[in-house]
Amino acid sequence: MDRTSEGIVVSTRIRLARNIEGFPFPSHLKDEKQAKEIIRLVSSGLSKLDEFRLMYMNTVTDEQAVCLMENHLISPKLIKNRRYSAALINREDNVSIMINEEDHLREQTIVKGLDLRLAYETMSEIDNKIANYMKFAFDEQLGFLTACPTNLGTGLRASVMQFLPALTMNGLMPKLIRGISRLGLTVRGIYGEGSEAEGYLYQISNEVTLGVTEEEILTQVGEVVKKVGELEENERRVIKTGPKALDIQDECMRAYGILTNCAKVSSQEFVRLASKVKLGACLGFVNISDVTEIDDLIVKMRPTNINAAAQKPLTTVDRDIYRAQYVANALKKLTL
Amino acid sequence: MDRTSEGIVVSTRIRLARNIEGFPFPSHLKDEKQAKEIIRLVSSGLSKLDEFRLMYMNTVTDEQAVCLMENHLISPKLIKNRRYSAALINREDNVSIMINEEDHLREQTIVKGLDLRLAYETMSEIDNKIANYMKFAFDEQLGFLTACPTNLGTGLRASVMQFLPALTMNGLMPKLIRGISRLGLTVRGIYGEGSEAEGYLYQISNEVTLGVTEEEILTQVGEVVKKVGELEENERRVIKTGPKALDIQDECMRAYGILTNCAKVSSQEFVRLASKVKLGACLGFVNISDVTEIDDLIVKMRPTNINAAAQKPLTTVDRDIYRAQYVANALKKLTL
Repeated sequence: MDRTSEGIVVSTRIRLARNIEGFPFPSHLKDEKQAKEIIRLVSSGLSKLDEFRLMYMNTVTDEQAVCLMENHLISPKLIKNRRYSAALINREDNVSIMINEEDHLREQTIVKGLDLRLAYETMSEIDNKIANYMKFAFDEQLGFLTACPTNLGTGLRASVMQFLPALTMNGLMPKLIRGISRLGLTVRGIYGEGSEAEGYLYQISNEVTLGVTEEEILTQVGEVVKKVGELEENERRVIKTGPKALDIQDECMRAYGILTNCAKVSSQEFVRLASKVKLGACLGFVNISDVTEIDDLIVKMRPTNINAAAQKPLTTVDRDIYRAQYVANALKKLTL
Repeated sequence: MDRTSEGIVVSTRIRLARNIEGFPFPSHLKDEKQAKEIIRLVSSGLSKLDEFRLMYMNTVTDEQAVCLMENHLISPKLIKNRRYSAALINREDNVSIMINEEDHLREQTIVKGLDLRLAYETMSEIDNKIANYMKFAFDEQLGFLTACPTNLGTGLRASVMQFLPALTMNGLMPKLIRGISRLGLTVRGIYGEGSEAEGYLYQISNEVTLGVTEEEILTQVGEVVKKVGELEENERRVIKTGPKALDIQDECMRAYGILTNCAKVSSQEFVRLASKVKLGACLGFVNISDVTEIDDLIVKMRPTNINAAAQKPLTTVDRDIYRAQYVANALKKLTL
């Protein structure tokens, strides 16, 4: 079975930037009272829908804040001005509305795999509901008004996270990133401590929000992502039949061997090894049934998510032990 | 189950140096004819017993020679003067008699585990048989005469190979080696390319052969080996309960994970990892039923032994692949 096309797109993210008419942008708010007024206004309508929980950032612990960040439900920026900011998060933890981040509202949703339209419709539906009970700052000429001009117009950022190990290993990412940026899109590696993108993950998103329709943005991002996916698939075939095949097979199999047997594993090393296991499965070197489960495992094994699962803050060592045991069991279950 | 005492003694080796009266020592032989005469004399009696095969060193291939060396049946020195030398090797491949090495006869046997007396008796019995049909160079005052004065007297070298990972890791070997040498014994690490003894293996043997009886040599070597074994056992307990326990457990378990999953493994890396697996089993970190099987595996996985098993010379890469597959299967069978 050829699995070279598997696991390339990890997730799709849609973000809408909105502001409320009659209020200064968050960085220019008069006082805490005005910030609270915005939070009240935004949440009033959504909490009626009983789908969202409201979290004031000055009431969450540092631990909770990091956990929300690790799960991409809030941004580091939201935490910086805690007394002013809040977040509305839905029950499924896949839609969040940050209040008083850079804009009054940053509405975002993340879905697994590639589904720009589904993600956009999910977000758009909620955006429409909000628009029913409050008036967004909008200009006939410019579209939605935002604190930073780079978000003007649609206020839409469509991002797709891709797992590109073969393009990375074969040294093609720098050239590809340059090419994509010429199309008005951005590619960002999810960098860890090393110089290589951690876990071979890259986020492709639109740069331009003004002078284009939402539909055009979604189409363009979707097309580029598809093209990049084809290139990755091609490079995976190059690896499989090339002179480095045995070395990479060995690396992937050892990563599997270590993760199913080690006594402890750090967060960073785990991401590195799990990515090799995932690559190994895609290349047919490691017998893992569903590579997207590895993506989920990477999220679950983040430090704060482990603390949350253990229902207490663990020491780093205890977390590394917990992670090793959890991962060994999970991978064995996924092994064909 | 406490397994800290397992796998310390790997093997016991007894070597007797003998020369034939009326012939110059090998380095002073007149010509090839004289060397062949010695080979004929020595082998005449033993081949009658139909237990030994005679191998002229100038008729074995380089590959065969390396294989005999890797299995400790001949020494590198025997190969240096191939036209003069030969070896008698028994069917079980555990007794060999080198002819025209440094002395006319170097009789040696290796047994698994610690059994100096069994090994000595085995060797002595064969030595007596040889003495029945030829006259050894012997002096009432000095005992057996040998080419090098360090072997004079008994001509006996009793060596025991020990696996001492805990003493090594805890940095106690240099001091221990100094202490043992003061007793007139020698400790040699089996050095690989690194500075640490490869596979944590050390050979303890008697230095003195003159002015002591065979019995005294066997007793002293046996006592020192036993003492070193107790020290090793103690250091294993120190590791198990000490602050480095988790790190070492992790190392051992990863070594097991790599060896049961890798696509290829070099000879040197295999010895390093197999030693960690063995240590892990002794410390109760890895579930391997019989650690002495790992010793056998290390011998079997030497390059020339793999070529012999494959019945053809393999490339280094093919050998590393063969080794990885063989070891993975073997270790899985040994896993409890």
